Amino acid sequence: MTDIPGYALLGRIQTPDDLRKLPVGELPGLAVEMRRYLIETLGRIGGHFAANLGTVELSLALHHCFETPRDRIVWDVGHQAYPHKILTGRRAQLETIRRLGGLAPFCLRAESEYDSFGVGHSSTSISAAAGMAAGARVKGEPRRVVAVIGDGGMTAGMAFEALNHAGHLGLDMLVIYNDNDMSISENVGALRDHSARLMQKLGLNTPHAARAPQAEHNEAHLDHPGAMFETFGFRYSGPIDGHDLPVLMAEFDRLKDSKGPQLLHVVTTKGKGFEPAEADPIKYHGITQFDPVTGAFPAKKGGGAPSYTQVFGDWLCRAAEHDPLIVGITPAMREGSGLVEFSKRFPDRYFDVGIAEQHAVTLAAGLACEGLKPVCAIYSTFLQRGYDQLIHDVAIQNLPVVFAIDRGGLVGADGATHHGAFDLSYLRCIPNMVVMAPSDENECRRMLATGVSLNQPSAVRYPRGNGNGLAAELDPKPLPVGRGRIVREAHGRRRPRVAILAFGAMVQPAIEAAEILDAVVADMRFVKPLDAELILDLANENDLLVTIEDNARLGGAGSGVNEVLVAQHHTVPVLNLGLPDQFVEHGTREELLAQVGLDTAGILRAIQKRLRSRDLDVSARTTNRGA
Amino acid sequence: MTDIPGYALLGRIQTPDDLRKLPVGELPGLAVEMRRYLIETLGRIGGHFAANLGTVELSLALHHCFETPRDRIVWDVGHQAYPHKILTGRRAQLETIRRLGGLAPFCLRAESEYDSFGVGHSSTSISAAAGMAAGARVKGEPRRVVAVIGDGGMTAGMAFEALNHAGHLGLDMLVIYNDNDMSISENVGALRDHSARLMQKLGLNTPHAARAPQAEHNEAHLDHPGAMFETFGFRYSGPIDGHDLPVLMAEFDRLKDSKGPQLLHVVTTKGKGFEPAEADPIKYHGITQFDPVTGAFPAKKGGGAPSYTQVFGDWLCRAAEHDPLIVGITPAMREGSGLVEFSKRFPDRYFDVGIAEQHAVTLAAGLACEGLKPVCAIYSTFLQRGYDQLIHDVAIQNLPVVFAIDRGGLVGADGATHHGAFDLSYLRCIPNMVVMAPSDENECRRMLATGVSLNQPSAVRYPRGNGNGLAAELDPKPLPVGRGRIVREAHGRRRPRVAILAFGAMVQPAIEAAEILDAVVADMRFVKPLDAELILDLANENDLLVTIEDNARLGGAGSGVNEVLVAQHHTVPVLNLGLPDQFVEHGTREELLAQVGLDTAGILRAIQKRLRSRDLDVSARTTNRGA
Repeated sequence: MTDIPGYALLGRIQTPDDLRKLPVGELPGLAVEMRRYLIETLGRIGGHFAANLGTVELSLALHHCFETPRDRIVWDVGHQAYPHKILTGRRAQLETIRRLGGLAPFCLRAESEYDSFGVGHSSTSISAAAGMAAGARVKGEPRRVVAVIGDGGMTAGMAFEALNHAGHLGLDMLVIYNDNDMSISENVGALRDHSARLMQKLGLNTPHAARAPQAEHNEAHLDHPGAMFETFGFRYSGPIDGHDLPVLMAEFDRLKDSKGPQLLHVVTTKGKGFEPAEADPIKYHGITQFDPVTGAFPAKKGGGAPSYTQVFGDWLCRAAEHDPLIVGITPAMREGSGLVEFSKRFPDRYFDVGIAEQHAVTLAAGLACEGLKPVCAIYSTFLQRGYDQLIHDVAIQNLPVVFAIDRGGLVGADGATHHGAFDLSYLRCIPNMVVMAPSDENECRRMLATGVSLNQPSAVRYPRGNGNGLAAELDPKPLPVGRGRIVREAHGRRRPRVAILAFGAMVQPAIEAAEILDAVVADMRFVKPLDAELILDLANENDLLVTIEDNARLGGAGSGVNEVLVAQHHTVPVLNLGLPDQFVEHGTREELLAQVGLDTAGILRAIQKRLRSRDLDVSARTTNRGA
Repeated sequence: MTDIPGYALLGRIQTPDDLRKLPVGELPGLAVEMRRYLIETLGRIGGHFAANLGTVELSLALHHCFETPRDRIVWDVGHQAYPHKILTGRRAQLETIRRLGGLAPFCLRAESEYDSFGVGHSSTSISAAAGMAAGARVKGEPRRVVAVIGDGGMTAGMAFEALNHAGHLGLDMLVIYNDNDMSISENVGALRDHSARLMQKLGLNTPHAARAPQAEHNEAHLDHPGAMFETFGFRYSGPIDGHDLPVLMAEFDRLKDSKGPQLLHVVTTKGKGFEPAEADPIKYHGITQFDPVTGAFPAKKGGGAPSYTQVFGDWLCRAAEHDPLIVGITPAMREGSGLVEFSKRFPDRYFDVGIAEQHAVTLAAGLACEGLKPVCAIYSTFLQRGYDQLIHDVAIQNLPVVFAIDRGGLVGADGATHHGAFDLSYLRCIPNMVVMAPSDENECRRMLATGVSLNQPSAVRYPRGNGNGLAAELDPKPLPVGRGRIVREAHGRRRPRVAILAFGAMVQPAIEAAEILDAVVADMRFVKPLDAELILDLANENDLLVTIEDNARLGGAGSGVNEVLVAQHHTVPVLNLGLPDQFVEHGTREELLAQVGLDTAGILRAIQKRLRSRDLDVSARTTNRGA
């Protein structure tokens, strides 16, 4: 019956139908096998890990009690949905997850009918489930809808917007509040403080216990632990142990045909069943390979270049040493944004606001109003959540907030939902913004120093991954705003002459391509304001300008170069290279850059193709000069 | 002492210092004068009205009890801050509010040191105040911080993000929850249901009473009305009567030196003291002139062209009649988005989600997953709040959601915070999006019909104001996607030949300018996908292409035209016209369009200037053709 040796139960489950046929008494054994499968597979290939150990029983119980795929399960974020993938026909492919052509890192509608909603960013599940429940109501279809959201996800505003609306409508839906006291780092916020005190009061042995804060002014709300959710119109039950299958299934059976909005508070342990991960769920949130017995990671190769994330974190600490007005803000990305050391050394000037990008940005604006110098570290893709606040609270008021935008461009294995593909386009159109993109670590340091020196908002946008390994410039000086620089001169000047105007991470491959083409390369440094003088000089001296960026070609930095040329009446031929007008999937950053033609070979290929066009046949005409 | 006849008390108040010197017994008389001043002034000039009658006592009590401007008051939205403006040195200028060069429509840091934070969009105040309170803590400054937020504002997620964080930090700050049971329309959501039942239970005669919903499953939370806020770490007090000055002042005096986060629930009446406005606060939310005694509005001039808002609302009703899958969504903009009739005729398919753009978009995505055809009506400026959801939940999943984007371009009197200046730039870079901009009402109908006919996301972006008065095309057919049309041919074809590529509301002034220039005019219809064939034809046949849009020039539709030309190796000279790279203030739409050069005269001026450039001297060279 089983199709994989050593997995007598798991091998029999191809779909939730198989699961529902399994005697209930077998489920705990299946949970054991699923954990073992996760540990073995992910130890070998890496991936999101600890959260998935926490949802094994939840996944089993949900698919057992609900009629999936007719009933909808919406997993928030989806990094905890590996057990769900295993149970819905994707067990054998799990070892391909996050790889080029392999399973998607999160849930994806195109991948499975059991993935009712595509996810990646946090806190969308209640809204999506409300839409599905409202849709079922409009169409008169008898389907059930379940959203599974973590306590981390519950810190984002849109979760409350959805609760408020769904509660008002009285939609038939179930929200499972999967409370493991963790975001990627420890969860923060008053709600988690409430949960922690509640667990303490109830004497429950949960992950919260160790970090329960001191009692405060008014603990009356602990007598009514669900009052908040009840106020939002949800019927609250729990907390229950999310690893106790009989309890979970009894609750689901009770709730699945209850009318109106229901919220079940489930307590789970991130990393459950694998001791090293339980002990350090932050370290085991997303992992590379490890030893499935000891949890040990392979020794890191020494001597590599630091990541941009580290460069930022180191710079921030050093800047904060010298300037007491600098404060650092992160929406729940302490580790990912390189702020661990800053948080330890400057706890009073460090603000982890939870998964709350909107608040992060406006908090920064408020701090800036009081004369502080906020540095707001947000991933490119997540800054989309704070876009209105960036425009309305920072840019219109011209407040000196520095946005440290990590994960600009393609991020690799996290895929379409996480690429920082649009920031140059959506930031460039906003007045008062200065937008910078560093080509190496020291440039990054200089640009950050530039940002805090300005009396207006700015953004420094850098890629995932490592710098070039330069010796660190520890006392970086601000750059002249809006000035680029030539980083490679041409030698021979054979015709047609090519100049490459490269932005940020594209400067290095541009130089490599230019070596072969003998092209000039400019590191533009500033996406906004653009160096119009440099652009014109290059336009006058060359037969083709090539712009390169790891941002959407539409509306991006190259589009800005076009605008400058048009405004200056210059009609030099231009080639705009950048991300295509489609969503890019997951894979390694290198694979994806090659796929979209933004590696050295692709850049070279594109330029050579462009050079073969008739309009660049310089022997046939004089060059085109501006008016 | 007084400087205005008939205002014995108000005439003595130039600053809050004057107010604080006034005997407390005089304050009720001052409140009466302030209301009279508001009614007389706004009856004459129009403006935001009903909300300001509700905050007279609050404003008096705040400035009396707190040491402004040292202490910070952050008014959410700011449309209710006219009493605050009156008390802080701007009484005489109130009659200039919302006019070109006059007082700003909302609070504005540049306008007064008493305006601690610039506002316009809802629900930013708690975040901003938290930033200020955190800043005071870091700097060790003894200032108090107060945020005043309405129950409407409290439906937006970022308010909860801020509560959760401020409560966790234990910041010294006061949130005044100004509960008048109203957004612009009636407030909606489970929280307001809770408030309404609470008022009923307490037997309070408040605005909520008439709309209190039926009791539901669990009313226990009514015994702990502040439990939600207490869960967020705020100490709750109230509800109190926000028009009772002695009660308000006693509470402020008690709270102002309390430590930690405080929330005071204040109940006010929108339109307080002016009977017509109390009876119909929606009608009197924002008004043109009216009779200060009867409240009567001047008779509307008949026969005018319908507004785009009406066109949309009528189209939606008609489309919904024929297609039971169409549903309509608005984030608290029933009146503003033209959805009153739809809400009455199709109550089960109408979703007012509160001020919750994020949820609105993802709810739409969830509905689309169930096969419905959601039409999500959001103002351009507010869609910035749902940007991540549009990308992540709609566009990546390629779901057929139609965004009906009202208030595209300059909106007039609401000013910098409300102009729809960036949508074409921030939408155009997103894969899978179809973006349309109608040049008249029937085009708008056709584009909406196009949107619902597509199996992918789309946006129809139309301006504030009236259409051209065309006979309504009641059964509009979908347009061919990505095809523009010539709306004016040139007659003489004198050189240099000019073709204007106009988008949306700019088509009409483009035609007017073209009459004088004898230029060709294309109504491009689609911002995305652009009609590359039409662009190339025009490029081949003309000496200058002019793009015109009422969107930021940077990254906008014209920038897209540049990209097409560049990609097609075409070097025809181009002039990109659009909004400048700066925030545009308030005034009438016509004044502002003239100011930025996007009226007929400005367009003509810009083109004529461009035509005088040397590169367009066609007698001196042959025309420039693509490769």
